[in-house]
Amino acid sequence: MTRILYTLCGSDADRPFSPHCWKVAMALAHKGLEFTERPVPFTAIPQLEDGFSKTVPILRDGERLVSDSFAIARYLEEVYPDRPSLFEGPGGEATARFVEGWSQTQIHPAVTAIALLRIHDMLDDRDRAYFRASREALLGRTLEEIDAEAADAAAAFAARLQPLRHMLRFQPFLGGEGPLFADYILFGALQWLRITAGSVPFLPDDPASDWFERMLDLHGGLGRSVTPA
Amino acid sequence: MTRILYTLCGSDADRPFSPHCWKVAMALAHKGLEFTERPVPFTAIPQLEDGFSKTVPILRDGERLVSDSFAIARYLEEVYPDRPSLFEGPGGEATARFVEGWSQTQIHPAVTAIALLRIHDMLDDRDRAYFRASREALLGRTLEEIDAEAADAAAAFAARLQPLRHMLRFQPFLGGEGPLFADYILFGALQWLRITAGSVPFLPDDPASDWFERMLDLHGGLGRSVTPA
Repeated sequence: MTRILYTLCGSDADRPFSPHCWKVAMALAHKGLEFTERPVPFTAIPQLEDGFSKTVPILRDGERLVSDSFAIARYLEEVYPDRPSLFEGPGGEATARFVEGWSQTQIHPAVTAIALLRIHDMLDDRDRAYFRASREALLGRTLEEIDAEAADAAAAFAARLQPLRHMLRFQPFLGGEGPLFADYILFGALQWLRITAGSVPFLPDDPASDWFERMLDLHGGLGRSVTPA
Repeated sequence: MTRILYTLCGSDADRPFSPHCWKVAMALAHKGLEFTERPVPFTAIPQLEDGFSKTVPILRDGERLVSDSFAIARYLEEVYPDRPSLFEGPGGEATARFVEGWSQTQIHPAVTAIALLRIHDMLDDRDRAYFRASREALLGRTLEEIDAEAADAAAAFAARLQPLRHMLRFQPFLGGEGPLFADYILFGALQWLRITAGSVPFLPDDPASDWFERMLDLHGGLGRSVTPA
């Protein structure tokens, strides 16, 4: 069966960086499902699979197509119930939506503030034009204006991980003794920052950094196999 | 069987306000377990049940004593598995620890900044002396210095609920279609603010406020039955 994960890259196809695509790559590995990753630039997404989705990740699983990282995780849980669970029950699935809400509203804006210009610089020329126009319209400022505050955003970043540190007093993963999709949600955001900005600005002796290292080790070092730009 | 929940109050025993005690009151109601609530002032806690715990909530469930809100929720789930679940699976329990981490690090400090002096003013004289000394030592400032910034903290409060709002685009509760212990964790913090400060400073037309109203309606209006001071 053909299983393809379409993901996002810049000019270097070996450095896919999209947080949402990383969530799904880790979820597929968690389920022990082999897949071929096909990283594409932003401007190639509308042509994928006859225009199936405006965004990646897109998963082709045999005859089926699914987009949106959370929808893909739910799909995998439903279609491959005998593989290791991504949610460990309906409560885990529901509460993962809260983790998504936290990551989207507290972590993603900070990664954007730190890494936006670096992401731009990783793109090929056609994508750069698209990226600059769309992001500057969305954010109401130039990439260079946003980048002027990147150092401040990086210095403030570690404080945003306080909820994770508090949880790590009790257990090594959001999923408890082992990782679940909730872990992959946060991992995706930090992996996006690591690959585009070079590293995640943790605290010294940071339990959050220890968690991230554990995540990079998972599934044969899948996350670690992509090095920062 | 005797089931007693020891909680915290000020001079008015009809207004128990502790966030952690509210989590457990809601959890007991969720399980459909009847209980007698015994609100006590801060300085009476060390005498409860032969000094069983330095903090409330303490649950006496027949012969058994349990303290700590999360430990009590786990106890209830284990001992009353045939009642409605508080976690809906191990993933829900694990991820609730992250919700706890978020609430403790992002919501509790904000409630403290808004309501600390008002909590003091709700206490009887003996508790006031204990509360002032312990909190001023912990926070390194006088209650009045902290209270001088309460209006600013209240104005900034609504932004802290962004993760909840994002989640509410997908489902009405952290637990999904219905509430789970993860909902009671956040509810406890906002109920603490409501009872001590008079209200929660939501946004206009705030879906987070709609969620809180749904929580106040649960279990026969248990949360709503205690009015603000």
